[in-house]
Amino acid sequence: MESIKQIAIVGGTHGNEYSGIYLLKKWHKAPSVLQRPGLNVEMVFANPAAFEANKRYVDCDLNRQFTYQSLSDDTLSNVEQARAKEINAQLGPKGDSRTDFIIDLHNTTSNMGPSLILLKSDDFNKKMGAYVLAKMPHAVVVFEDQVSMDEHYFLSSIAPQGVIVEIGPQPQSVIRQDVLDWMETMTHTLLDFVELYNKGKLPDLPSSYEAFKYEETLSLPQDDLGERIGMVHKQVQDNDFKPLVKGDPIFTLFDGGEIAYQGDYEAYPHFINEAAYYDNNLAMSLAKKITVTI
Amino acid sequence: MESIKQIAIVGGTHGNEYSGIYLLKKWHKAPSVLQRPGLNVEMVFANPAAFEANKRYVDCDLNRQFTYQSLSDDTLSNVEQARAKEINAQLGPKGDSRTDFIIDLHNTTSNMGPSLILLKSDDFNKKMGAYVLAKMPHAVVVFEDQVSMDEHYFLSSIAPQGVIVEIGPQPQSVIRQDVLDWMETMTHTLLDFVELYNKGKLPDLPSSYEAFKYEETLSLPQDDLGERIGMVHKQVQDNDFKPLVKGDPIFTLFDGGEIAYQGDYEAYPHFINEAAYYDNNLAMSLAKKITVTI
Repeated sequence: MESIKQIAIVGGTHGNEYSGIYLLKKWHKAPSVLQRPGLNVEMVFANPAAFEANKRYVDCDLNRQFTYQSLSDDTLSNVEQARAKEINAQLGPKGDSRTDFIIDLHNTTSNMGPSLILLKSDDFNKKMGAYVLAKMPHAVVVFEDQVSMDEHYFLSSIAPQGVIVEIGPQPQSVIRQDVLDWMETMTHTLLDFVELYNKGKLPDLPSSYEAFKYEETLSLPQDDLGERIGMVHKQVQDNDFKPLVKGDPIFTLFDGGEIAYQGDYEAYPHFINEAAYYDNNLAMSLAKKITVTI
Repeated sequence: MESIKQIAIVGGTHGNEYSGIYLLKKWHKAPSVLQRPGLNVEMVFANPAAFEANKRYVDCDLNRQFTYQSLSDDTLSNVEQARAKEINAQLGPKGDSRTDFIIDLHNTTSNMGPSLILLKSDDFNKKMGAYVLAKMPHAVVVFEDQVSMDEHYFLSSIAPQGVIVEIGPQPQSVIRQDVLDWMETMTHTLLDFVELYNKGKLPDLPSSYEAFKYEETLSLPQDDLGERIGMVHKQVQDNDFKPLVKGDPIFTLFDGGEIAYQGDYEAYPHFINEAAYYDNNLAMSLAKKITVTI
C-alpha cells in the first residue's frame, strides 16, 4: 500500500450528531493539533443543511448515498444526493480519490462506547484496530467488511481507506463531554497510527485481538399492518456487545409478551435501540465475535 | 376541594417523546385498565402532527401555549397555537374546566428517573407526592409552584389540578422499556391516589417528605456573538438531583477551561443537558431541596 498523505476528517454527516460538529468547530480554531509529520489533514462539515434543521438529514440519509450508481446519476438531486456529489468531487472521486483516508465522525444513541467501524480487513485496518485497542482499552472494533469499499454506500468509502468513528450513548442534538472526549481521543489516536504506519514505526502490537464482525440487522416486531407492537427488551437495552444466545429474551411486546432470540449463533448486539433506525423499524445490529490476527 | 371525577391522560404533547404516545396506543386497546370507581378517564393525543414529523413540535412548543392570553388570541394560529385552542375547548376551558385533573406524560433525555412535577402545593398535591413516593421509592417530586395554575403556560394547567409526569433518560424518538414501565406505573399510581383521595381512604402517609422546588434555569456558556463555547461538565452529566455547591465545576469550555457553580445555595440540577432545551441554549434547571409537611 502507498503511504497515506491526504486525510479528511468529516463531521456532521448526520446533522443531529453533535460531537463531530463541535469538534470541527474546535479544531477550526486550533488546526495545528491535527497536524502530523507527513500528513495533510483537511476538515469537512458534511451536512450543514441538516444541522441547521437540527435533523439527521433533510431529504435522505447522506451516509447511504456514496455508491457509484448514486454518485453518477444526475437525476438524484435532493439535498443529500446533491451534497454527496459535492463531497465526492471535493474528496474523491470514488475509485480515483485524491484523499487517501477518511475519518467520518458519528454518534449513536446506543450504548456502544467508543467504537471504530472498519470497512475492510487489510493489513492497515487490522493493525489500526490493534493500535486503537492498545491506546483505548475500552474501545470496540467492528468490521463491516461484508462488501468491498467499492460496494459500500458510506461517505468514508470514497477513499481507498476510510473508517467510521461511532460513539455513544448520546441523544440526538446533545453534546455529552464523555462522548466528545472519546471522539477526540480516538481521532488523535487514528492520526497517530497513520503517521507511525507510514514511517514503519508502529509499536509492538499483539499478534491477535478480539473484534466483532457485522452479521445482520433485526427489525422491531410489527403486526400485519406494519404497526410496531413491541420494543427492545430491558435486558438487552444498553447491553451493546454483550452476548445473546438462543432463547434469551430480546423484545418485549406492548401486550406484555416476550420474544426470544432464535438465532443459531452467539450474537453481539450493537446499535441497540438507535433512534435514527426507527425510520426503517430497525431494532439492532448483530455481530459475531472474531479473532483478528495480524 | 370538590372530588375529582373527570380525568384526562395526555400523551404526545411533544411529538418525539414516545413513552406517552405508545402507552396511549396500548391503553386504547385495553382502556379498562385505566378505570377506577368514581372516575371518568379520557385519553388525548395532544400533538399528532409533531409525532408525524418526528419532532418535538411543528411550529412552536405546544406545552408553552396555555396562558389565558395565548388561548384567547385568535391571531395566534400556527400548528401548536391552533392545537392548544382545540385542546382547551375539549378539556377546558381553562378557568372553568370540565376536566378536574390532567396527567400530561413527558420524556426527558436527562437522567431524572421517574419524576412527578407538581404545579401547585395544596393538600391534594402534597399528599399525591407522598403517595407516589410511598409506592415508587425511586421517584422524585418537584414543585414548580413558582406561579399559580392560572399563570402557568403548561397544558396541564387547563384543569384545576394537573401534573407533568417526566421520565428519563430517554433519547428523543426512542422507546426504552424501563422508562415506559416507570411511566405506566406512575400513571396507575396517580389514578389509584385520586380514587383513594376522593373516598377519604388514603393509607397512612409520612407527615413530611423531601422534595425539590424549582429555583432557576442556567444557560450554556456563550461568547459575545451567541456562539456556544462550552458544555455541561462531565461531573454534572447524569447527576440529576445530586447537590451542587459553590465552586463545583458545572461547565467545560471547548477550549479546555472550566466554569464553576457560583450560586449561594445548595442547588439540585435537573433537566441536565435536555436535548430539547438547546433551542433556547439552556443547560439545566436548578432546584432547592425542601421538606414538605402534610
